[in-house]
Amino acid sequence: MNYRMIFHTTGKVALVLAALLVIPMILSACLLEACWWAFAITIGISLVVGLVLLLCLKPKSNVFFSREGLIIVSLAWIYVSLIGALPFVISGAIPSYIDALFETASGFSTTGATILQGEQIETMAKGLLFWRSFTHWIGGMGVIVFVMALVSGASDRSMHILRAEMPGPTVDKIVPKARTTAKILYLIYIGFTVIEIIALIIAGMPIFDAVVHAFGTAGTGGFGIRADSIASYSPACQWIITVFMLLFGVNFNLYYLMIMRKFRSAFSSRELWIYCGIIVVSITAISINITKQLSYTQTVGDGIRHAAFQVAAFLTTTGYSTIPASSSVNALPIFTKGLLFLLMFIGGSAGSTAGGLKVSRVALLGCAIRKELKRVLNPRNTNAVKFEGKVVSDEVLHGVTSYFALYMIIIAVTFIVLCFDPVTKLSADSVMSAVETNITAAVSCVNNIGPAYGFAASGYYMYNWLSKLVLTIAMILGRLEIYPLLLACSPLTWIKR
Amino acid sequence: MNYRMIFHTTGKVALVLAALLVIPMILSACLLEACWWAFAITIGISLVVGLVLLLCLKPKSNVFFSREGLIIVSLAWIYVSLIGALPFVISGAIPSYIDALFETASGFSTTGATILQGEQIETMAKGLLFWRSFTHWIGGMGVIVFVMALVSGASDRSMHILRAEMPGPTVDKIVPKARTTAKILYLIYIGFTVIEIIALIIAGMPIFDAVVHAFGTAGTGGFGIRADSIASYSPACQWIITVFMLLFGVNFNLYYLMIMRKFRSAFSSRELWIYCGIIVVSITAISINITKQLSYTQTVGDGIRHAAFQVAAFLTTTGYSTIPASSSVNALPIFTKGLLFLLMFIGGSAGSTAGGLKVSRVALLGCAIRKELKRVLNPRNTNAVKFEGKVVSDEVLHGVTSYFALYMIIIAVTFIVLCFDPVTKLSADSVMSAVETNITAAVSCVNNIGPAYGFAASGYYMYNWLSKLVLTIAMILGRLEIYPLLLACSPLTWIKR
Repeated sequence: MNYRMIFHTTGKVALVLAALLVIPMILSACLLEACWWAFAITIGISLVVGLVLLLCLKPKSNVFFSREGLIIVSLAWIYVSLIGALPFVISGAIPSYIDALFETASGFSTTGATILQGEQIETMAKGLLFWRSFTHWIGGMGVIVFVMALVSGASDRSMHILRAEMPGPTVDKIVPKARTTAKILYLIYIGFTVIEIIALIIAGMPIFDAVVHAFGTAGTGGFGIRADSIASYSPACQWIITVFMLLFGVNFNLYYLMIMRKFRSAFSSRELWIYCGIIVVSITAISINITKQLSYTQTVGDGIRHAAFQVAAFLTTTGYSTIPASSSVNALPIFTKGLLFLLMFIGGSAGSTAGGLKVSRVALLGCAIRKELKRVLNPRNTNAVKFEGKVVSDEVLHGVTSYFALYMIIIAVTFIVLCFDPVTKLSADSVMSAVETNITAAVSCVNNIGPAYGFAASGYYMYNWLSKLVLTIAMILGRLEIYPLLLACSPLTWIKR
Repeated sequence: MNYRMIFHTTGKVALVLAALLVIPMILSACLLEACWWAFAITIGISLVVGLVLLLCLKPKSNVFFSREGLIIVSLAWIYVSLIGALPFVISGAIPSYIDALFETASGFSTTGATILQGEQIETMAKGLLFWRSFTHWIGGMGVIVFVMALVSGASDRSMHILRAEMPGPTVDKIVPKARTTAKILYLIYIGFTVIEIIALIIAGMPIFDAVVHAFGTAGTGGFGIRADSIASYSPACQWIITVFMLLFGVNFNLYYLMIMRKFRSAFSSRELWIYCGIIVVSITAISINITKQLSYTQTVGDGIRHAAFQVAAFLTTTGYSTIPASSSVNALPIFTKGLLFLLMFIGGSAGSTAGGLKVSRVALLGCAIRKELKRVLNPRNTNAVKFEGKVVSDEVLHGVTSYFALYMIIIAVTFIVLCFDPVTKLSADSVMSAVETNITAAVSCVNNIGPAYGFAASGYYMYNWLSKLVLTIAMILGRLEIYPLLLACSPLTWIKR
């Protein structure tokens, strides 16, 4: 194990975090908020950690295997969550460190689950609110680029692993170098964010709100700055956010292909069409289900707007909401709740900032099942399975089905630990729906969505510290597609052979 | 496709069903119940159908592939459910045919989910109650023997498919002929049932009750004859049923090995030890969780008894209950509810009468995940996975992981159809827990358990006809381990090549 290399890279991450913290510090200082010094202290800590790691532990070799890559990625996400939580604690905005860690991990993992109650969010200093949403944007960038840039020095193989079974047209085939790829995806990400900010400002949203919500959309995070999320903004703003949520749920490589004017190959992506199909079917079904059923969906237009927003929010794992404060996600019709719950598992496209299983994995699961059905029917059958015009190897199919099994087990473990929670603060009614709450909370956090049903519909503050810690781990596991963090904690990785 | 062979075998099934219906008819006649003629009419119908199919459609050849096997098995289960429902309708005990079909399919699939309300069960004619529980016993035998006997004329390969990925010591290796195997397993099944009946009678249960409950235990079904299931019987009876539920959840091949005095090889079954481990851990955890928490678990002894009973009932997919009528499964502590929910997925051992994924499949899922984790760590790693002392082929591992994915999709589809149900008869509280109800109902029926949480805790009568039909299909799908019925309905099977 190349320990020096691991700590050296973590040192670099610490310095990057310190640099990123400068932005909210400056904002706080300009707004004359007292919390600016909380950022300053955190910057100091991260600077010291980074310099110590960088200067004292120079790597002797650049030899770098996939196990080092997995550990570095895990350490990076754990480090930014642990240190990124400090401004909340030091400023006193979130006195409990576990709460602050949950909030920050939720930010960096682009989940958007919050332990804050409505009034706490609305009275929080703007610097801290900015940092909270900025973690989404950094997290989203991390997923797309950071990981790739980090391992660009390594072999192609380790990069391949970190990107899991990402099928479809990947940019690698167009641009050979990982660093170049990273830059291009970077620019697309920044470009879309800027366009969304401008669109929201034009639609009448205040500048600060527009920036913060664009961060939340870009990272498919979901932290808002109002108790009722997006509900009290104008329909125009809601539509803009809907469109951008859906855009950020598309494989970024397709945008690159479009920029290169390779429209034919971009639009031939099977994943894109399945993604669009799921969106159209879900919006139609939910529109029909909710129109005239709720006090805020009396017209067909309202029905479609709320259906489109909620479908986009759940499918792309963003988790914003347009359900008014007077209502609750629990009051949605049962079919809508059920369908949104299933969308939680699917998630966005591979190569996007969205979490979840990813559309391509779901499609590959279908391929694996079809292949197995054919095999049962005719054991000698060895028909090849095709996806995105290419034959899918057995190795990829097993990879996907095993990943699915592991993913369900992680959800089950998270669920049962949540059931340990006595949730004594609850009324009898809420206890009735505790199983529902715990299932949806586990699914929501592993898939990096944010909102849950039952008593967690208003936030995660009712859970105890153990539940919050487990959900924090679940969020990071989900964000890193399980393997890196699980293997970093596994004896398999550490045993010398 | 050998259509004549398929119909010929279905004809045999029709005659067997007619013969089996004679027993409840005689019982009804002896008890001077009016419903005996409902059985007589049904026997007449099944006799005519059977004779027509047998005499008019003599198979021209005995050529028999796995596709014919799959269709025959599916048709057999559908036929017995469709015709077995008639006595309930003709006698007027269950006026709606869909309800009667649900009840009968629930019986034959050894699920034990009921659309009857407490008072309806307690006032039903004994002949019908006997038939209702007898379907469990026939279903359980069907799972173990019927299927095997049916295909004994076919190639080894098709038998292998129907028994899915059943690992561990199988009797095939000891007794070469399928017919002999069938007879031995038959005798073990009958023997255990008789011992349970005697034990229950000695413990003070009335003879009729003992027979009916032994049928429910043997088939891991769960139909009772009292509104509160087993709750109002003595603790001794509850313990006897607990032990037998657990015994019927063990691979029957192990009993055969024990009869052959091959104790070493029986007790070296890894599946058996995992099964015992799950039982011990679950009973311990739930005992601690419920003792002194509920009005009926004030002593440690009560806590352990109720914990053991419920764990056995859920894990072996039987679904009996000892929760008093004054309480409800919904009132159990959240952790207990959560753990029982997870046990629903596991099910009993392969080669038992239990439903669910089966312990060995869960263990193989673990093996597949472990293999994939090693592959991620070291792509060149090709370590073989071992289970029950044998190397597990990649084909078996994919089989299991693909089966799991398909199984979860079946649950998801069942769930979303249940969400269509307006369940207008409900109070606001119950609507709150409708997601919980629909998830547990879908999981319960696909895994052939029976009870669910939320508003279905008191039975499935609140659902509409569409939901009941879908749950009926889900029960049969689950019982046949999905492939036969799914493939019988799939164009893959019918397209000529």
